[in-house]
Amino acid sequence: MINNEDKGHMRLAIRLATESVHKGGGPFGAVIVKEGKIVAASSNRVTLDNDPTAHAEVCAIREACKKLNTFDLSGCVLYASCEPCPMCLASMYWAHISRYYYANDKEDAKAIDFDDAFIYSEFALSPEKRSMPREQMLHDEAIVTFQEWTKKDDKIEY
Amino acid sequence: MINNEDKGHMRLAIRLATESVHKGGGPFGAVIVKEGKIVAASSNRVTLDNDPTAHAEVCAIREACKKLNTFDLSGCVLYASCEPCPMCLASMYWAHISRYYYANDKEDAKAIDFDDAFIYSEFALSPEKRSMPREQMLHDEAIVTFQEWTKKDDKIEY
Repeated sequence: MINNEDKGHMRLAIRLATESVHKGGGPFGAVIVKEGKIVAASSNRVTLDNDPTAHAEVCAIREACKKLNTFDLSGCVLYASCEPCPMCLASMYWAHISRYYYANDKEDAKAIDFDDAFIYSEFALSPEKRSMPREQMLHDEAIVTFQEWTKKDDKIEY
Repeated sequence: MINNEDKGHMRLAIRLATESVHKGGGPFGAVIVKEGKIVAASSNRVTLDNDPTAHAEVCAIREACKKLNTFDLSGCVLYASCEPCPMCLASMYWAHISRYYYANDKEDAKAIDFDDAFIYSEFALSPEKRSMPREQMLHDEAIVTFQEWTKKDDKIEY
């Protein structure tokens, strides 16, 4: 059930998206809320920071983790002015975001020439059919690192 | 065709992954190369920086973009000590990485309890079947931001 608090948080995400258009960033905003309180709010900073990973959701996750001093945002709710792209959605899984709301969707993003739908369609293909070529190599050398990780007693898992 | 230069770059990614285990980070490394020259090299910094988005590939992309002063890494090759997770793969699409090599794969990562395979399996489900609940809201308000974006003459697209 969407309530007035949810609407307030989403309107902030939308306002950040609109302000970003005026400032020269991408038209996206995101807000992260924990126990009813806003812990992070960011717009897209890709072109402003020359950082292709600086989508609003990723920036908000980084900001929330810094503020809460943790890499685990379990219990947090994310409000995104647009449906998260695969990078952002996966980052939300890694951060253990509990649920999310979105306003515009990936078809809207596609209509204004963002690659979200293209990347989702690439993910739906088997790796050898994707447009980005890849090849496995030196597996026998790299697996040793994972064996060291397994043996390590004091590792911090995430 | 994998040549000795490729092997050298991958061995650096693997060395960074191993050093990361010793330093308290995750067992992953990544190297980005442009025209034969290394432009960025990073290990996983999730637990060291309290940043769930600080996978080796994402850190290397950020570093390469900073160094080259661009958000577009077209022509760059990425060497990852482990098959990129969905977040990293999508960030590589956004950055226009041209191709990539990997050593360990997502099944190896799963075997040492990393969530890569789980997130890939979530992506294969339709959104309503995924474990992270979501809901669309305020679409009519958010679409106005995209209309403003469309009308803006001096926007920087990416």
